[in-house]
Amino acid sequence: MAKPKKTPRPKAQTPKGFRDYFGTDVTDRAEMLQKIAGVYHRYGFDALESSAVETVEALGKFLPDVDRPNEGVFAWQEEDGDWLALRYDMTAPLARVYAQHRNDLPNPYRRYAMGPVWRNEKPGPGRFRQFYQCDADTVGTASMAADAEICAMLSDTLEAVGIQRGDYVIRINNRKVLNGVMEVAGLAGDDKEAERGIVLRAIDKLDRLGPDGVRALLGDGRKDESGDVTEGARLNEKQIETVMAFVQAKSTVERNLARSAQDVEDFDTSYAFKARKAVSWGQGSNRLETEEAWQAGDIWNSAVIQELDYLVKGSEIGQRGVRELLEITSLLFNSGYYSDRIVIDPSVVRGLGYYTGPVYEAELTFDVQNEKGQTVQFGSVAGGGRYDDLVKRFTGQEVPATGVSIGVDRLLAALRATNRIGTTEQGPVVVTVMDRDRMADYQQMVAELRSAGIRAEVYLGNPKNFGNQLKYADKRNAPIAIIEGGDEKERGVVQIKDLYLGAKIAETATHEEWAENPSQFEVPRDQMLAKVQEILNQ
Amino acid sequence: MAKPKKTPRPKAQTPKGFRDYFGTDVTDRAEMLQKIAGVYHRYGFDALESSAVETVEALGKFLPDVDRPNEGVFAWQEEDGDWLALRYDMTAPLARVYAQHRNDLPNPYRRYAMGPVWRNEKPGPGRFRQFYQCDADTVGTASMAADAEICAMLSDTLEAVGIQRGDYVIRINNRKVLNGVMEVAGLAGDDKEAERGIVLRAIDKLDRLGPDGVRALLGDGRKDESGDVTEGARLNEKQIETVMAFVQAKSTVERNLARSAQDVEDFDTSYAFKARKAVSWGQGSNRLETEEAWQAGDIWNSAVIQELDYLVKGSEIGQRGVRELLEITSLLFNSGYYSDRIVIDPSVVRGLGYYTGPVYEAELTFDVQNEKGQTVQFGSVAGGGRYDDLVKRFTGQEVPATGVSIGVDRLLAALRATNRIGTTEQGPVVVTVMDRDRMADYQQMVAELRSAGIRAEVYLGNPKNFGNQLKYADKRNAPIAIIEGGDEKERGVVQIKDLYLGAKIAETATHEEWAENPSQFEVPRDQMLAKVQEILNQ
Repeated sequence: MAKPKKTPRPKAQTPKGFRDYFGTDVTDRAEMLQKIAGVYHRYGFDALESSAVETVEALGKFLPDVDRPNEGVFAWQEEDGDWLALRYDMTAPLARVYAQHRNDLPNPYRRYAMGPVWRNEKPGPGRFRQFYQCDADTVGTASMAADAEICAMLSDTLEAVGIQRGDYVIRINNRKVLNGVMEVAGLAGDDKEAERGIVLRAIDKLDRLGPDGVRALLGDGRKDESGDVTEGARLNEKQIETVMAFVQAKSTVERNLARSAQDVEDFDTSYAFKARKAVSWGQGSNRLETEEAWQAGDIWNSAVIQELDYLVKGSEIGQRGVRELLEITSLLFNSGYYSDRIVIDPSVVRGLGYYTGPVYEAELTFDVQNEKGQTVQFGSVAGGGRYDDLVKRFTGQEVPATGVSIGVDRLLAALRATNRIGTTEQGPVVVTVMDRDRMADYQQMVAELRSAGIRAEVYLGNPKNFGNQLKYADKRNAPIAIIEGGDEKERGVVQIKDLYLGAKIAETATHEEWAENPSQFEVPRDQMLAKVQEILNQ
Repeated sequence: MAKPKKTPRPKAQTPKGFRDYFGTDVTDRAEMLQKIAGVYHRYGFDALESSAVETVEALGKFLPDVDRPNEGVFAWQEEDGDWLALRYDMTAPLARVYAQHRNDLPNPYRRYAMGPVWRNEKPGPGRFRQFYQCDADTVGTASMAADAEICAMLSDTLEAVGIQRGDYVIRINNRKVLNGVMEVAGLAGDDKEAERGIVLRAIDKLDRLGPDGVRALLGDGRKDESGDVTEGARLNEKQIETVMAFVQAKSTVERNLARSAQDVEDFDTSYAFKARKAVSWGQGSNRLETEEAWQAGDIWNSAVIQELDYLVKGSEIGQRGVRELLEITSLLFNSGYYSDRIVIDPSVVRGLGYYTGPVYEAELTFDVQNEKGQTVQFGSVAGGGRYDDLVKRFTGQEVPATGVSIGVDRLLAALRATNRIGTTEQGPVVVTVMDRDRMADYQQMVAELRSAGIRAEVYLGNPKNFGNQLKYADKRNAPIAIIEGGDEKERGVVQIKDLYLGAKIAETATHEEWAENPSQFEVPRDQMLAKVQEILNQ
């Protein structure tokens, strides 16, 4: 008879590209998300938690001519033949939820959603196949007020989690303006899709490649440092100039504004004047209340709008986009959000194909060190825009929507990089076990400490080796260890070790100071709680 | 040429057995979990969020002789051949995490975990395939202090979320005592596994079937109301008496205690005396501090221990179990947890096969109406116990562990059933849109309200029909609507409608009262915020 096969021991490992989160990784994120939810809630957004599992057809990732769902999602077939999949973002499920429950939901429907999403992609350093997203969307209104509101909310959110004003900027652009520029450059037709793709990707790289790099990509292509060649859009010189004027609109405006500022006499009649005019055009009545607010906020956005309006002249879609931008910035201006926080930036593209109007992203502008030790701006932590035909797949009706997604891990990393959130946590008070038969005494001590709201635990390992207990306290980052041996018990006292002070003394003390052991205190048992509180409150 | 096939519209539906959570369903749960995490943290437990996806071999649900993972989990095969699955509980992932990271984790390791789990089971009414669990476990210690601590923590947790003392009870039993009873009844051998299974299931049904029903299941079987027959364990009369004495130990003790109480002269020498002796046996020194504490707490647990000790006489394993129960209740007693909160109950079985020592569950004892309109006790909301060989699968070493899992949805339902948590939420203040060109004015109003911490939103739908705006405010459960038409604008005032008061008046008012419209106020624009605050603070 064959021996029964022995099952080999399973490997204790997460699947490739997955990870576990421990302690403050979990609680810091939860704390940050709670602050974000507070802002979203104040703006009238309601929480939604859709199921993590969707039918593949609802996600829309099932290609008609393959027998397995598309790459990018984790999917499986049920015994009844249905394909199910894990959600890869929060937007596709929102479209499904809205289509399913539209008769019961308020209309427009403002909702926020926070939770993990899953991507079946090749994992890499810092790229995981499960990560958090935190979205807010308004479904059911075409009003630019919805977009403006989300930009204001994003600004409030960043400040609520601890990013200071001046350390971030919300950048807005409009896909219609981009389309308008394409039209002016003669790239509007269905047969020009490939070129448009190259142009959009080139614009998106302005920050990284600079104007010359973008120009190369619009023309014959670009060779990078490693020698690899990226193919260009092969536009002619006039087309390239049109696109570049758009890409560089920001610099043009900067240059012109600087010129205006130099020539103070002329200031009011130049950009400031045009800008002011632009704002009043948008809002019907001129509500510029103080010159200060005006200086802080509007010159930049109004001047950029003027410039864009000029660049898309002759394109109807382009001019519609410019009007949308104007409407958003006017609304924001009137609610007190100026271009020190929210600016129009023509170089914002946003990858996803489905955006149809305003697009926006939040960028952190402070410096951090990258892996190579170089000082760089922290960069983007959130992005979104208007997508008007996502629900249509289900209902046949076009439902306008706009929304933003915060990259939870990146924002948390930013808060940690700048010490806006603690990375190491004070551990619990550890009550050591000197006499294993008196566990009840030690439990009583921790119960007393916990009742006073102090995090505390009794050592539950093998108490034989006292050194191990102190090593454990050290691993727990415990601020205090409490010791009550038979002798202390008899005398009605406990020993209290201030471990943080002890560690500090160990680093610097002379032999004499060390011998005095000023970090250990003997107190009567009934004063234990008071002494612990005293040390913790130092 | 064949026409291109048109893809049919996808159905807007969650997969069978999945659901979405809206608004307060999400936020109430989050609030409850946050309170629970606060207690766990105070007890020295650290947060852990393991990945939702595990390898099937790590979960241990892959049977060696089938080519697909076992029923009960959602699993799929990766292109590289690996099978992945969604976690079905928090314990299997804990075992994997502990085995993977044991050199970096403190030992013993106390951790808590909160999040969704997935079960590939047939959905039914109220039974979903994705639901929340909230677990706390201590890995790496065999000390009964770990079990006692978790019972105390569970008690604190229930009170922290709003269950009052007296409305819940933590019931403790011990698998070793159960095994001891089996041994005494002659049901210990490997060949008696089927009988033992029937006996355990029968004991578990005491609450529902009563002693006679259990007795039938221990003997020849039982016919239920519908006529269905459940097969019995076919024990002989003596075996049945042994098991029944155990099952009814609680009633025996209750009867005896009542008898003792009647005969007050005799009280101290009867159960109270034995109970007292039992406690001092457990803890080495007699720490009964006040007669009051003694009365409140110990008589019950000590008396039950005496009874169980008698019932497992002759079984070594059984007596080990009794000593463990004694140790736990002594520790709890000394930390101030008496049998008004935590009681020994021999009828607690707990389904899962892997428990090896103490088992415990939390039961809510207040009455609620069930679906049939009958008044019933709310029942169990949490359970757990000691499982000493779960990590062994990975490492070959036995690692003792004990832990509890809270049924999040059931506990939340309990809080709602007893109005301990609000089910309907006050909506936002809704600023209506009378003049669509003045959106900036309305946005300014909500910005002002939000800055003061008030939840507020501007109506973003089509403003043409004012009735729709008020219907929207109603659907949002808005407390207040704000109205500023052209006339108000000119006069520098706004109309403020108290919608809750309005609804109340509409129910009861006479025609005259109604005409006065006492729920609508006209105030100067710059007093809007103050008036809104006044109404909200009423």
